[in-house]
Amino acid sequence: MAENKFTLIHKDGKTQARVGQLRTAHGVVNTPIFMPVGTRATVKACTPRELVEIGVEIILGNTYHLYLRPGSQVIDQAGGLHRFMAWKKPILTDSGGFQVFSLGASRTISEEGVEFRSEIDGSKHFITPERSIDIQNTLGADIIMTFDECPPQPSDYAYLKDSMEMTLRWAKRCKKAHRNPNQQLFGIVQGGMEKTLRKASVEGTVRIGFPGYAIGGMSVGEEKALMYETLAYTVPLLPRGKPRYLMGVGTPEDLVYGVSCGVDMFDCVMPTRNARNGWLFTTDGVVRIRNAKYKMDFTPLDPDCLCYTCQNFTRAYLRHLYMEKEILAHRLHTLHNLHFYLSLMRGIRRAIHEDSFARLNKNIPALVKLGQKNRK
Amino acid sequence: MAENKFTLIHKDGKTQARVGQLRTAHGVVNTPIFMPVGTRATVKACTPRELVEIGVEIILGNTYHLYLRPGSQVIDQAGGLHRFMAWKKPILTDSGGFQVFSLGASRTISEEGVEFRSEIDGSKHFITPERSIDIQNTLGADIIMTFDECPPQPSDYAYLKDSMEMTLRWAKRCKKAHRNPNQQLFGIVQGGMEKTLRKASVEGTVRIGFPGYAIGGMSVGEEKALMYETLAYTVPLLPRGKPRYLMGVGTPEDLVYGVSCGVDMFDCVMPTRNARNGWLFTTDGVVRIRNAKYKMDFTPLDPDCLCYTCQNFTRAYLRHLYMEKEILAHRLHTLHNLHFYLSLMRGIRRAIHEDSFARLNKNIPALVKLGQKNRK
Repeated sequence: MAENKFTLIHKDGKTQARVGQLRTAHGVVNTPIFMPVGTRATVKACTPRELVEIGVEIILGNTYHLYLRPGSQVIDQAGGLHRFMAWKKPILTDSGGFQVFSLGASRTISEEGVEFRSEIDGSKHFITPERSIDIQNTLGADIIMTFDECPPQPSDYAYLKDSMEMTLRWAKRCKKAHRNPNQQLFGIVQGGMEKTLRKASVEGTVRIGFPGYAIGGMSVGEEKALMYETLAYTVPLLPRGKPRYLMGVGTPEDLVYGVSCGVDMFDCVMPTRNARNGWLFTTDGVVRIRNAKYKMDFTPLDPDCLCYTCQNFTRAYLRHLYMEKEILAHRLHTLHNLHFYLSLMRGIRRAIHEDSFARLNKNIPALVKLGQKNRK
Repeated sequence: MAENKFTLIHKDGKTQARVGQLRTAHGVVNTPIFMPVGTRATVKACTPRELVEIGVEIILGNTYHLYLRPGSQVIDQAGGLHRFMAWKKPILTDSGGFQVFSLGASRTISEEGVEFRSEIDGSKHFITPERSIDIQNTLGADIIMTFDECPPQPSDYAYLKDSMEMTLRWAKRCKKAHRNPNQQLFGIVQGGMEKTLRKASVEGTVRIGFPGYAIGGMSVGEEKALMYETLAYTVPLLPRGKPRYLMGVGTPEDLVYGVSCGVDMFDCVMPTRNARNGWLFTTDGVVRIRNAKYKMDFTPLDPDCLCYTCQNFTRAYLRHLYMEKEILAHRLHTLHNLHFYLSLMRGIRRAIHEDSFARLNKNIPALVKLGQKNRK
C-alpha cells in the first residue's frame, strides 16, 4: 500500500471541520485550501509571482481546454504544465469530464467513453477514461482526477444510478491506466442529490481505493438547501484519513459550509470571473464597482485588506479603470478577490486550530480578518 | 528668472547627443529618457510597481482623455493625477491639442480655441489655451505642455505658417494662464517640414521663454527622411541649456536618431500598443509572436533580456497566451517591450557617458545590451 500523503493535524470539536497537510511532488498544501482556476495554463490576469505573493499554494488546470489548445504535445515538449506556465507549486487537473458533458448536443456518451466535436475547429475527439489519464499523465499535475460522468440536474433516479455505476467502472479503468506514481489520482463520488446513490458511490469508489476523494456534481444544481443537505450527508461517509475535495464550489458561504462538513479542498471560478465583471468581495459585503456611487469614493475597496489593490488604490480609481475596460481593472480586481478567498481559507485554518471555528462559522468577515492577520 | 531645472552632464564629442538631469517636483529624471504613455491614468496592462521595477522614471498622461473621463473634477478631488493613479514619480501631460485636432470633422478651430464634440456622448466642449492649462494645473503633472495646433501632413505653406503663428499666440496665452510654479510649462515648436517656419517657430517660442521645448508635428508625416532632416535642422536651434522633447516618436531607430540630434525626451505608444498586438522587440529583431513557428519554441523571447517575461517564460507559452487572448499575454508583452525601450535608453545614456555613442549609434542591439548590464 502506498504511503499516506495526507496528515490530519487538528479536528474541530463541534463540527466536521479539520486542518491537515497534503504532501505533493511540488510541495505541501495546507488544508482546508482554495485552488484558483487556471483554465488555459494561466490564472486569468495573474502572474505566478503574484499568486505566490498572495499565498496561493495550489492551482487547478482544465484538461479539456489544455488538450484542445495548446494541445498535450506542446505541454509535453515543454516538460509538463508546471514548466510550461512557470508555476513551481502544486497543480491539480480535472479529467475533462465536466467540460465534455457540458457540450450537450455535440457529444455522445457510451460505456467506452465520450465522443465530441471541438468547439474550435469542429474536429472529432474521443475521450475514454484511459485517454483522460494519459493526457493528465502528460500534463504532469500533482493531483489528477478520474474521468467521471457529471449528470445534469435534475436527472431521474434511474439515470443517476446508471451514470453513477458507469462512473465506478470508469474509475477502475482510470486507476488501472494511471502510470505516474508522482501524481496522486483522486476518485470522484457522484449520485446527484440521492443519498442512497451517494452512499453507494462512496462505497464503490473507496473499494477501488484512491489517495483522495472528490465530491462531484455539486455545482450543477439549483437548490442550495438540497445541495447542502447532500453534502453534509456524503462527506462524513468518506475515509477520515484521506483528503476530500468539493469540485467547482463556490461562494464564501459555500466554502465555510463545506469546511464545517469536513471538506479539505475547493476550487471555483467565482473569485476570478466575478473580479473581471467588477463584482468584488469585501468584509463589508459585495462591491459592484461600476455603481455610480463609487465615482467620487476615494477610500480603499476594503480598508481592512492588505492586498496590493487595497493598499494603493481607491474605489474611484478602480471604477474609472473598469468603466474604461482597462486591463489593469481586471488585474487589480482579480488580485483582490483571490486575496479575499485565500484570507478566508487562512482564517478558517486558524480558527480550526484555535477551536473557534464553530463560533465564527457564520461570520465570514471575522474569518477573513483573522486570515489577513495570520499569513499561515 | 526661474531657477534652471535642467543640468547638462555630458555631451557627445561627435554627435549632438547629451546626457542630463531634469529636476521635477516628483524627483529627478535622467535624460535622454523614454516616457511610457499612460493615456487614461494607467500605462496599459501595468501596475505602478512594475513600472518602477523596470526603471521607468516618468510617464505621460493624455489631458484630452482624462478631461473627458473620469473628468478633471474626479482627479482634482482625488488630489491630482499622481495620487489618483498611485504613481509617485514624475508625470508629463500633453495639452490635448493633438487629440482634439485628430477629431477632424467634429471640431472647429478659431483664434479663441477649438470646439469639438465628445466621442463618448456627443456633448459639446470648447478648449482654449487657458482652459487646457487650467485642466493641466488641476491634473498636477510635473511637466505640462502649451496648447498648440498640430497641422496635418501634408499641409500647404500658407496653412502651416498661419497655424505656426497662431500656436505662438496660444503659447503666450498659455504662459500667462499658468498658475502652478511646481509645474514646468514647456513650449512646442511647430512648422511642418518647412525649415524657415521651424526656425521662426523656435525663435518665437524661445522669445516667450519656457523651461523646456518640445518639437511637435513629427509623428504625423509619412516620409521619414524628410522628418529626420527637419529634426536634425530644428533641434540645434533650441537653447542648449533646456530640455528638448520630441513628441510622439517613435521606433527604436527614431529614438537613437533623435538622441544624435540632441533630443532629451521621447514618448510613444509603440512599445505598449505593439505589445498588445504581439509585436515584440528583441535584440535579434522583431518577433511576431502569433507566427506558427513559435508554437514549439521553448526558448525565451530574448535570451539576453533580464525582464520578468524573458526570465520565466518561453515563446511557446507567450504564443499560447496570445492566441487565447489571455490578459497575461498583454501583461508579459508590455512588460518586455517597455523593458526593451528603457534598456535602450539606459544604454544610450551609458554610451554617451563613455563617449561610445557615435560608434554604437546604428547598433541598437548593442545599445540595448549595454542598458541591460547597467541599470543606471
